[in-house]
Amino acid sequence: MPLLYHHPFSAASRFVRLILGEYDEEVELVETMPWKRDEKLLLVNPAGTLPVFVDHDGVTASGALVIAEYLAETRGARMGEVKLLPENVGDRAEARRLLHWFAVKMHGEVTDYLATEKIFKRLMTIAEGGGSPNAAAIRAARANIRYHLQYIGWLAARRNWLGGRGLSFADLAAAAELSVVDYLGEVPWEADETAKAWYARIKSRPSFRPILAETMRGLPAATHYADLDF
Amino acid sequence: MPLLYHHPFSAASRFVRLILGEYDEEVELVETMPWKRDEKLLLVNPAGTLPVFVDHDGVTASGALVIAEYLAETRGARMGEVKLLPENVGDRAEARRLLHWFAVKMHGEVTDYLATEKIFKRLMTIAEGGGSPNAAAIRAARANIRYHLQYIGWLAARRNWLGGRGLSFADLAAAAELSVVDYLGEVPWEADETAKAWYARIKSRPSFRPILAETMRGLPAATHYADLDF
Repeated sequence: MPLLYHHPFSAASRFVRLILGEYDEEVELVETMPWKRDEKLLLVNPAGTLPVFVDHDGVTASGALVIAEYLAETRGARMGEVKLLPENVGDRAEARRLLHWFAVKMHGEVTDYLATEKIFKRLMTIAEGGGSPNAAAIRAARANIRYHLQYIGWLAARRNWLGGRGLSFADLAAAAELSVVDYLGEVPWEADETAKAWYARIKSRPSFRPILAETMRGLPAATHYADLDF
Repeated sequence: MPLLYHHPFSAASRFVRLILGEYDEEVELVETMPWKRDEKLLLVNPAGTLPVFVDHDGVTASGALVIAEYLAETRGARMGEVKLLPENVGDRAEARRLLHWFAVKMHGEVTDYLATEKIFKRLMTIAEGGGSPNAAAIRAARANIRYHLQYIGWLAARRNWLGGRGLSFADLAAAAELSVVDYLGEVPWEADETAKAWYARIKSRPSFRPILAETMRGLPAATHYADLDF
């Protein structure tokens, strides 16, 4: 069975788990803390970052964007409706633009701040960078998320899914980021009904179930987190 | 003719110019300063970042990694030897891992610091973030580049090209980053002969010529910059 080195609250790892769920692919999850020097992780990915996918034949793909392309090439081709990348090259460029928007830009402006300050710093030792959260970083994330939520709403009002007509990597990347932020109760859903309706649609997909079941000791999920009619 | 919104000293833009050169594709270059609010740029790429490629049929691809995939899909297929992505899916994942390593990790740890502090801050107004360079950022980049140069040497000693048997996006991404740093005379070539020999090979390709001809008023290139036997 393929392996996925991941962390339950790494948005990039969640994105890959959603892809695997949509492609109906079973995987063995290896929980990894990327802030610890982990020789097993460094052996498969010298960058020491998550996620890393090791296929059943040993082929390794490192990093969420690389894994997404790899899975599209190895699994997507055999899928019918749910390919996650459009057929047309121009539409693919648009889906990838939004994939990068959410996985890189939104991640850096919102999720990374909130996950680091409110989750990872609790798990890290002081030497690893743990400690009390940085209020300025949390404030920045809270301001930035409104703009990203609005962009999701804007896209969802104009298209069937964020990246175009079909469900794509763009939706899964956006949903993965939001799912981490939503666990923390930090998504101002009342600010955009269209974004909320899009998220409700994607949240009810079977691929999302394992993510909604994640919990962290000492930090319970926001009450509506696993609720499909939030 | 396709358009490329670029900046001569943006490593990501140089990477795409190298791809276009290797694919023997002519393009009209539109020089853009991404730190200025540019309505034309925002219209084609809401993220306001470089590079952006607009194909002759109007299809737009934003961001170097998205453009690379788009060009591989639209131009790479018709190329013989120089496809820039290997045929085998596992080898593609490895070439893409290194592409991301150089375009994201090395860029963030080395090139972005040096280009921002030593080039872009000269071109920016104070309100845009211009001013005197931050010595700590330059020191960090100078420490980090040794590790990246060593990794390039390690790869080049084991493989024909960095990403495997054939020239790939991995080489072009690494070379694009190094070319900006080398303009500034900040690559410690004496530290790794193997990396230097690899760079001499890629530097002598015709796709590299326009990049070696770039100059900036008030900031001449390091004396060996355009020299193929540096």
